[in-house]
Amino acid sequence: MTITESGVVDNGVNVAALLGAREHMTETPELAQFQWRAQCEWVNGTHSRTTVEKFSGAGGEQTHRQPYTVDTDHPELFASPDNGMTPTEMVLAGLAGCLTGGIASVATNRGVQLRSVKATLEGDMDLAGILGIDSDVRNGYSGIRVRYEIDADATKEELEGIVAQSQKRSAVYDIITNPTTIVVEVA
Amino acid sequence: MTITESGVVDNGVNVAALLGAREHMTETPELAQFQWRAQCEWVNGTHSRTTVEKFSGAGGEQTHRQPYTVDTDHPELFASPDNGMTPTEMVLAGLAGCLTGGIASVATNRGVQLRSVKATLEGDMDLAGILGIDSDVRNGYSGIRVRYEIDADATKEELEGIVAQSQKRSAVYDIITNPTTIVVEVA
Repeated sequence: MTITESGVVDNGVNVAALLGAREHMTETPELAQFQWRAQCEWVNGTHSRTTVEKFSGAGGEQTHRQPYTVDTDHPELFASPDNGMTPTEMVLAGLAGCLTGGIASVATNRGVQLRSVKATLEGDMDLAGILGIDSDVRNGYSGIRVRYEIDADATKEELEGIVAQSQKRSAVYDIITNPTTIVVEVA
Repeated sequence: MTITESGVVDNGVNVAALLGAREHMTETPELAQFQWRAQCEWVNGTHSRTTVEKFSGAGGEQTHRQPYTVDTDHPELFASPDNGMTPTEMVLAGLAGCLTGGIASVATNRGVQLRSVKATLEGDMDLAGILGIDSDVRNGYSGIRVRYEIDADATKEELEGIVAQSQKRSAVYDIITNPTTIVVEVA
């Protein structure tokens, strides 16, 4: 753990606590079983509101410091009032947050002080899919690109290694690049 | 189009505009080529902020009515300050928003008046993946469940049909259930 060796790296990540959690969850695998939850309420039209507050893990029920709420909607281009980002943009936000938090964690573990980290994300989508124009076109992204600009005490190779390790351990990167089963039911 | 036939269904979705867009994009496929974008900035620790404002599509550059910003962070359980929902919860929010907006659109197209639509989402995750404890455990969700409670002028079978059609045309449902390529680079 370079953070204690160098003593000067502070990216705001408590790596000791993360390594401690890893140790605990290695000894007691049940503690690593998490369930993330969300409650969504339709507002009107394509506008809906999702709230996140409770989850389970580390052997019990957990609660966020406060509830967090996000709105999604379609843009005015589709005759919607544009009361929030689109759901597909929200997926990009989840990916960006996951990779960027990972970069801060890995950089700290490697003794690299970050000054600024910025990411630009682009996702290509042919609407012939969701509009039902062409059944050969998928509904989702045909591809996503993420470009990082990082100002840090490290070489470009070191930064590329940090970003690669963040990808390797990113939940959202995995969710998007690999298939996940979703079961939808009506009560 | 049942909306004009019935004349009384109003779920706030302009189905005529959506059908018009489909017609235009069928005639001129280039109009259906969209690019969604996001800008992420690291704040501190695992806390980052993502902003969405511009996108392209319908043959040109487009702008949201206003920029939309969301924060992601890790919970206090991981020694983080919990300044936002986790990135994995944000993916659930994107899924919920996409399916729910779709339900309103399909219901309108089928002449079904909605009174309330609520969804509860759960995603299971074994943290042995992202913590690097067990390489056989994936980083992302092992599975996601979505349960809808819908109050509407329709039978349960009709509602199940509406939800199924929303799944069939959902971008985020496709993004999560099927693999998408992500290219990450460091400038």
